[in-house]
Amino acid sequence: MNNVLNFDSVSGILSCQAGCVLENLSLYLEDRDYIMPLDLGAKGSCHIGGNVATNAGGLRLLRYGSLRGTVLGLEVVLADGRVLDCLATLRKDNTGYDLKQLFIGSEGTLGVITAVTILCPRKPKAVNVAFLGCESFEQLLQTFQLCRGMLGEILSAFEFLDKECMRLLNTHLKLANPITDCPFYIVIETSGSNPTHDEEKLHQFLEEAMTSSQVIDGTVATDEAKIKALWSLRERVTEALTHDGFTYKYDISLPVERIYQLVTDMREHLGDRAKSVVGYGHVGDGNLHLNITSPTKDPDLLASIEPFVYEWTARFQGSISAEHGLGLKKRNYIYYSKASLAVALMGNIKIMLDPKGILNPYKTLPDDLQ
Amino acid sequence: MNNVLNFDSVSGILSCQAGCVLENLSLYLEDRDYIMPLDLGAKGSCHIGGNVATNAGGLRLLRYGSLRGTVLGLEVVLADGRVLDCLATLRKDNTGYDLKQLFIGSEGTLGVITAVTILCPRKPKAVNVAFLGCESFEQLLQTFQLCRGMLGEILSAFEFLDKECMRLLNTHLKLANPITDCPFYIVIETSGSNPTHDEEKLHQFLEEAMTSSQVIDGTVATDEAKIKALWSLRERVTEALTHDGFTYKYDISLPVERIYQLVTDMREHLGDRAKSVVGYGHVGDGNLHLNITSPTKDPDLLASIEPFVYEWTARFQGSISAEHGLGLKKRNYIYYSKASLAVALMGNIKIMLDPKGILNPYKTLPDDLQ
Repeated sequence: MNNVLNFDSVSGILSCQAGCVLENLSLYLEDRDYIMPLDLGAKGSCHIGGNVATNAGGLRLLRYGSLRGTVLGLEVVLADGRVLDCLATLRKDNTGYDLKQLFIGSEGTLGVITAVTILCPRKPKAVNVAFLGCESFEQLLQTFQLCRGMLGEILSAFEFLDKECMRLLNTHLKLANPITDCPFYIVIETSGSNPTHDEEKLHQFLEEAMTSSQVIDGTVATDEAKIKALWSLRERVTEALTHDGFTYKYDISLPVERIYQLVTDMREHLGDRAKSVVGYGHVGDGNLHLNITSPTKDPDLLASIEPFVYEWTARFQGSISAEHGLGLKKRNYIYYSKASLAVALMGNIKIMLDPKGILNPYKTLPDDLQ
Repeated sequence: MNNVLNFDSVSGILSCQAGCVLENLSLYLEDRDYIMPLDLGAKGSCHIGGNVATNAGGLRLLRYGSLRGTVLGLEVVLADGRVLDCLATLRKDNTGYDLKQLFIGSEGTLGVITAVTILCPRKPKAVNVAFLGCESFEQLLQTFQLCRGMLGEILSAFEFLDKECMRLLNTHLKLANPITDCPFYIVIETSGSNPTHDEEKLHQFLEEAMTSSQVIDGTVATDEAKIKALWSLRERVTEALTHDGFTYKYDISLPVERIYQLVTDMREHLGDRAKSVVGYGHVGDGNLHLNITSPTKDPDLLASIEPFVYEWTARFQGSISAEHGLGLKKRNYIYYSKASLAVALMGNIKIMLDPKGILNPYKTLPDDLQ
């Protein structure tokens, strides 16, 4: 189940079996001057079938969009064993309902994905990464706005971490901060087709950001080793957290102006009951990873976090799972983000496609629909 | 039903009622430095609700992707009168199944869309259009490849028309060909954030395309009036066809290498039974508009076209409706592009959401499922 089935180098459309490891697909494509439209920290071990089943987001969503747009076809085994062939290799197809969307992000509860067709972008000729520091989240948002205007079509990632994340990276992984200490850090990536133009755009943006004092300090990388080093400050936060203690993880989607307010409010709400309360994530997508650590598993702490975090999110019409999915642990909180009628319809779809409830039971849907 | 409900100028997320006219939304956004992610010839009269219900493609799909990626939320009235609120304004949300996808492209057969949330791109600071001529479709495809490499992230459209289209534009609309007569014409549009960079990229590309003889002749527009004039050669082909006679229209999706072969084969197949057989469309999306005219409605001609066109398309795993949908006329041909099991599942979804069959009956689904 880990074979590439076909690659069309004119259209950039890849067909492969579900067991292909994301990183292997990336390497396969890079040899052919293309890249995968998604990239995430777990690329070395995750399978494309799982990426699609969970509608994985990751680091390139800002630029290349979600899998709902880039996945063009699926082959799926249904609960009764029949094989649903929707493995189209076409960019456009309006012949009836788009069944494949039911399986994207349904966490294996409606069918088992066995093959995937996906639209891949051209490999950029130039990649640059800037690591910047800001005094406040307000400044960080201003920098995001400036950046979208001045970097425009070459912007491929706008990620952030707070100073608590940096402290954990320093303490647990001995990773050094490459710039002055700041409350907030940004990782900006550009990917483009003309190295000279991209560097010019990046330098004009940095000059403007520094001059207007939106950014306090920063460093830029164009060679692969330094790019990797700067990215690791963002990508290895999760690893640093595992060394800090037992981690309560939340993956929240909010209007971008709100995302850090939740971290501040949570910190205040928990006081010294938590060991660390950290915020990082995908600013460009309005997606906050809020993580709270404790020396050991702590039911009292958990009772302070939940449902506080879900109520807070619901108050601002956010999503309690931006990209991680509901799985086993979060499925009963679905009503914080979805209307009752929507959840009831999900139950109808589950009954239609898996009447005996044999596909990944006790996942995604709440207890009252199991 | 034609009000903007909200626009977030940081994230570019627009919420509006379904009756907003696409062009009015475009104008509203342009004042705020954004654009709609879709654009089509009918923008002056089509409604955003209809665009979403039919999963409209149009001229910008190559750059900004399909509505399946850009539509973030929907409000839908179900067959039983209940209102399904999936009007999220979030870029990412993995809490359960993505119900809104059921309504995108289902042509009003599963529910009535009443409001839409959509992610809008920044307004480009520079737009250029080039109108080029090629000796063969092979050269046109080579130009497409070269263009994707050299224009990269600023390419926003790659459209084509054949010399038959140009003849109809000349004859019926008195539109003059701005370049030397050629078998094929290309409209390339760039949209970017830096006018100097964009012009440099475009000129480097044109020099390379001319030097390597992929392109015979061409003209470039940067000012709005000339851009509009060049675009009209592509956009007014449909209008020119209405003056040529009764038109049989086909909207076919194919692997891009194949799209013109269908026109050539059809011309040969029909011989002098047709008045004109023309091909134009969205090369970047593998989407051919094949149109055949006749002095009057001609059942014999139709019998020569169908099922020939559908069989030809099915042989190359194409779609018999790339963007227009199945509607009333094409629904019984669905099996040429979709597996029986897929069509049966569509029937189950229809029964689940509209058990009495009151929503847009006799559309989309074939007779055996009505």
